[in-house]
Amino acid sequence: MINLESLFKITYGLYIVCSGDKNRSNGFISNTIFQVSSEPIQFAACCSKNNYTSEFIKKQGVFSISVLHKETDAEIYTKFGYKSGRDFNKLEGMNVKYGKTGVPIVLNDSIAYLECKVVQTHDVGTHWLFIGELIDAQIIDETNEPITYSYYREIKKGLAPKNAPTYIDKTKLEANTETTKSVKYECTVCGYIYDENKEEDSFLDLPDSWECPVCGADKESFIEI
Amino acid sequence: MINLESLFKITYGLYIVCSGDKNRSNGFISNTIFQVSSEPIQFAACCSKNNYTSEFIKKQGVFSISVLHKETDAEIYTKFGYKSGRDFNKLEGMNVKYGKTGVPIVLNDSIAYLECKVVQTHDVGTHWLFIGELIDAQIIDETNEPITYSYYREIKKGLAPKNAPTYIDKTKLEANTETTKSVKYECTVCGYIYDENKEEDSFLDLPDSWECPVCGADKESFIEI
Repeated sequence: MINLESLFKITYGLYIVCSGDKNRSNGFISNTIFQVSSEPIQFAACCSKNNYTSEFIKKQGVFSISVLHKETDAEIYTKFGYKSGRDFNKLEGMNVKYGKTGVPIVLNDSIAYLECKVVQTHDVGTHWLFIGELIDAQIIDETNEPITYSYYREIKKGLAPKNAPTYIDKTKLEANTETTKSVKYECTVCGYIYDENKEEDSFLDLPDSWECPVCGADKESFIEI
Repeated sequence: MINLESLFKITYGLYIVCSGDKNRSNGFISNTIFQVSSEPIQFAACCSKNNYTSEFIKKQGVFSISVLHKETDAEIYTKFGYKSGRDFNKLEGMNVKYGKTGVPIVLNDSIAYLECKVVQTHDVGTHWLFIGELIDAQIIDETNEPITYSYYREIKKGLAPKNAPTYIDKTKLEANTETTKSVKYECTVCGYIYDENKEEDSFLDLPDSWECPVCGADKESFIEI
């Protein structure tokens, strides 16, 4: 039987991937970025077909990658990871630069950015795999370290949203691992689990002002599971 | 001008990717592995067309990924990163398991492994991008952490070999960054630079038994640059 926990041993960073132009744009949190060649310098980015940003990348043929650091504001993950740009303009109020291709680049909590022009698009089932040639790349902040996905999961207690290539259904994961009897509450917004066995307080003892540590949803957004 | 240093802000792990069967096989060090979908679980692996392992992956249609940990023996990087399996059998003497598809899986210094069956192959120029469906995945060692490419670069002073998708020509990199006048010696085997400005000893003062910290080549393999 496949041990799904082993998939968490693959190392990733976390990025905001954006596309669009000055008029319309969107971005999302991605962990699946890697360089595929050095002559020319090309990068691969994986993006769910359900993801609104996919539509912009396909239409505009460009995307930017902002490299997030370890102390990235939780609001960034909430906005770009768990909310859809179909409902509001994610880039409003953000510190945005427009690149050489006109693509928006988010600078908030970013230590570097890359700008790519799509040269290939591959259908890998539920996701698109975009291959982009590097147009520009700059460092913004020399002091902070890039955040890794394992740091986000282990230290920040963050979870992959459903559209992420690395999303793992928790019921499958728990069938794979030893389980203990406990009371758990799930955030209906982002899927975060408050497990009383691992916390100091029982869920009901938490103050009404308590918020989901991942997406900021209020206590009433949780259901007992 | 593109700042090539920004490419080092992209986070990667380090893996041994193997292919072949019980009779003939090969493996190489890869940092470019990511999951591309969760239904079904699929992974992308990027591999130079010059890489001997590419031939096995294309022929056998399978590959394994062994996740290396932080304390991985330098000999592993030397053997799988800087030597060609065209010259000798890299898997001889290694702790190898054969997976469900018959693919060899290196267990030395690995904390987990994944076994994939190729479902798509994309030509991205100098490299192939293989998409593989996950056949098996297991954890071998719960105690060690996966090594990251930045840890390998900064702490272990390792460099990407020329076939790596993330290989950066040092002359280009130095044209990008502030340079100081110094005496440097380059390892002709792996490209490691001994920079006297950053070291306690001048190169000539090093003992004859001194070896390249990356690939283990002897002192005579270095040339002044």
